[in-house]
Amino acid sequence: MQEIERHVREVPDFPSPGISFKDITPLIEDGPAFHAAVDRAAAATAGIDYDRVLSAEARGFVFGTALAYRARKGLILARKPGKLPRETISASYDLEYGSNTLHVHADSIREGTRVLVVDDLLATGGTARAMCQLVENAGGVVAGVAFLVELTFLNGRERLAPYPVTSLLTYDA
Amino acid sequence: MQEIERHVREVPDFPSPGISFKDITPLIEDGPAFHAAVDRAAAATAGIDYDRVLSAEARGFVFGTALAYRARKGLILARKPGKLPRETISASYDLEYGSNTLHVHADSIREGTRVLVVDDLLATGGTARAMCQLVENAGGVVAGVAFLVELTFLNGRERLAPYPVTSLLTYDA
Repeated sequence: MQEIERHVREVPDFPSPGISFKDITPLIEDGPAFHAAVDRAAAATAGIDYDRVLSAEARGFVFGTALAYRARKGLILARKPGKLPRETISASYDLEYGSNTLHVHADSIREGTRVLVVDDLLATGGTARAMCQLVENAGGVVAGVAFLVELTFLNGRERLAPYPVTSLLTYDA
Repeated sequence: MQEIERHVREVPDFPSPGISFKDITPLIEDGPAFHAAVDRAAAATAGIDYDRVLSAEARGFVFGTALAYRARKGLILARKPGKLPRETISASYDLEYGSNTLHVHADSIREGTRVLVVDDLLATGGTARAMCQLVENAGGVVAGVAFLVELTFLNGRERLAPYPVTSLLTYDA
């Protein structure tokens, strides 16, 4: 795992003072390391029975796409308002200041569709929780939730219970 | 190619009256069709000598990631202002109303880095042209430009000359 983790760069005081940002762009830019991270995540989620991956824009699309392609699954895009051209369903979640809303096409998730929710980062879990709500509102099933990086000290995993959560890299500060 | 093209849905009058939007989300959601599209694009660009893929948020990350993963290359993210945590370089391009600016980390492209610019859609070519400028401003080389969908009637390919342009699906209206 060291060959993956060493490509994550910690940037102090971003986006605000006191926050140590985990910058995964150097990992994504390194072909062998990125490939290895995706393959490990695919192995960690291989036991989950799912039909499609669901990821949120923008950075979430990277890990979601790679995992979907690797597993030969389809990818559902969760997007900000006004980006999808057809009828959508939506779910909102709170941010420190204000809130965000995610949309998916209304026909992307059907009754019983089994969905693996994928994001790059598990912080407080708000984005992933909104995606899980979208899946269930559409009659689908959350088969699991997978992350590249988990900030364990923010307890996001608890907010996602009882869904099974997988993460590749964990940070406790 | 029919097994790929039939998953692209034309949505009339989006985002504005008279525009026939090419909605690729049904293609991305279909595991086998998405996989086939990426594999075909990988084959079409296999003769290009490049080190890294460069894609712009948000929808562009999907095709860019898949192609990079498939080719075992790294992916550079071109992002909107304020999203990248470290020092960046940027390029702007005009839209019908206003303009957009794309940033990449300053250390993502070095002297001589060979870059394959990838986007889902070639319309007028503004986004791709800005990405090519970013590459050259950083001292890199644009090895080629690849798209999933090309709207040939908008002549974007001419605006990208002399870079070699590859597209998988073309629409002449």
